[in-house]
Amino acid sequence: MSKDLNIVALTGGVGGAKLALGLTKVLSPENLSLVVNTGDDFQHLGLHISPDIDTLLYTLSGLENPKTGWGRNGETWSFMSALKELGGETWFQLGDKDLATNVYRTAALQAGMSLSDITQQLARRRGINNQIIPMSDDPVRTRITTDDGILDFQEYFVKHQCKPAVREISFDGIETALPTSRFQQLLESDTIDAFILCPSNPYLSMEPILALPNVRDLLAASKACVIGISPVVAGDSLKGPTSKIMQELGLACSSRQIAAHYQDIVDGWIIDDTDTSLTSEIEELGIAVENTNVIMRSLQDRINLATATLEMVTALRRDF
Amino acid sequence: MSKDLNIVALTGGVGGAKLALGLTKVLSPENLSLVVNTGDDFQHLGLHISPDIDTLLYTLSGLENPKTGWGRNGETWSFMSALKELGGETWFQLGDKDLATNVYRTAALQAGMSLSDITQQLARRRGINNQIIPMSDDPVRTRITTDDGILDFQEYFVKHQCKPAVREISFDGIETALPTSRFQQLLESDTIDAFILCPSNPYLSMEPILALPNVRDLLAASKACVIGISPVVAGDSLKGPTSKIMQELGLACSSRQIAAHYQDIVDGWIIDDTDTSLTSEIEELGIAVENTNVIMRSLQDRINLATATLEMVTALRRDF
Repeated sequence: MSKDLNIVALTGGVGGAKLALGLTKVLSPENLSLVVNTGDDFQHLGLHISPDIDTLLYTLSGLENPKTGWGRNGETWSFMSALKELGGETWFQLGDKDLATNVYRTAALQAGMSLSDITQQLARRRGINNQIIPMSDDPVRTRITTDDGILDFQEYFVKHQCKPAVREISFDGIETALPTSRFQQLLESDTIDAFILCPSNPYLSMEPILALPNVRDLLAASKACVIGISPVVAGDSLKGPTSKIMQELGLACSSRQIAAHYQDIVDGWIIDDTDTSLTSEIEELGIAVENTNVIMRSLQDRINLATATLEMVTALRRDF
Repeated sequence: MSKDLNIVALTGGVGGAKLALGLTKVLSPENLSLVVNTGDDFQHLGLHISPDIDTLLYTLSGLENPKTGWGRNGETWSFMSALKELGGETWFQLGDKDLATNVYRTAALQAGMSLSDITQQLARRRGINNQIIPMSDDPVRTRITTDDGILDFQEYFVKHQCKPAVREISFDGIETALPTSRFQQLLESDTIDAFILCPSNPYLSMEPILALPNVRDLLAASKACVIGISPVVAGDSLKGPTSKIMQELGLACSSRQIAAHYQDIVDGWIIDDTDTSLTSEIEELGIAVENTNVIMRSLQDRINLATATLEMVTALRRDF
């Protein structure tokens, strides 16, 4: 494995951030850029909240809350309790420390800074030297059509705890949103060795990134290889509602199904050791397959999966 | 003293809020309305902060911090420490609980509610049944011309801790700001027995209220009596920079000087027992004078001063 590989990882929140952390341990910062989903962003209590960006920033700076998968460690909750006293909206939990990030970002946006510049500034101030790139500076908002009506993503995900059955997922603003200029540069660069699709929810977290105008075409056309890591193991999602949503959308919940969803763009697909029986049917889609342990419980698991991913990049580059 | 007096108290922050608390203990809520200075309001970190309104609300609901004179009791500071990590502006202290009030207000303003309606809602949710009325729903911003340049009020008051010498005090927006409709109704009402000028800083806290279009004229013309309580005792201000500012503005720091400042509107002036030597020269201004203890250390002091104020109202009403 070469440490000189130039890698761009596309990621959502929790699952993706775990692999991203692993990648930061085996690549120098200048060789790893991270493009983050902003379809989960929303306005709440007058604040601009970017859940996936913050999960990534907290994870990479060691401030994440491993118990919840969101928010900060060592968090306090005085703000929420005082807001409750006032009868304010408390369904979305904002810790006192997490609030600082959100107030800071909102004030900077109001002052005219772009989400890209703010995110990069937040990353630097957290001691993160990778490029952390929002997928777009324009608003894209994931909406979930459910049996209970159309819900904003956070309403669906947090307020209703993913309970309503999903019929359709759409992304408001996606037609006119542009990839951030840095993301666009990476997509058009000829010095990138691989784009990695992190094991985030394919429909909720990865799809907004891929649905931005031209992104899918540019990935398909890129001379860089594209490798995805399966977020589904043994027919179930490791975390979050992936398997439930796939069922509701009438899709078989399997690693092969997700590989097929990415068929036009991925060159390689990494599955869990328990799913090796799927290898040949995924290869039939024209996708190279590797298997390893994709369940990231420990830091070493994250590093191992990152290492396996880069080994696949090296192997596929040789074949190109 | 009659509990049926209809009273409107005009107030700034700390000193005024102390008397306001005393008044709430001796008047039923429907007989006491409080009009609050908003000249200290400002935008900070994207939030609309109303220091005097909040000091009053916290004081009347027993949530005030008696040590600082601002903010809440039992406060925590996780937000500020996290903001500091990010290199955010930390000169203005916002506690985690206090932040809930400010976020709530800012979000409600953004949603189109008036400051009046929000303030009344905050009061109700804090169990305060008096009318709490911002002086204006329009922005009025106190600016201090100092030897170090023109400063926003909070820059002068908090960031520079009142150190720069004051040359002039002005109120941006005062020409076009309107008193809130409820304040205007009270000014024009013929059922008010008295307007009380609380012992807040006359130049910083009371002046913005009185400088709103027509307010001074309506108070002078009102058939209600107008009674002020001296914020200066024995030639010194009880709290805050009043005496320093008076000196810098070339004014003698005395209770008589402040009475003269209000000469066109006040019928009665309450001075401290230690200042009785000033009685005759204040009476020469055509103002009735009473003396009592105006230094409010305990709750009983607040109640006593409120009681003395209402007794003066009753006495002056008899003379009318």
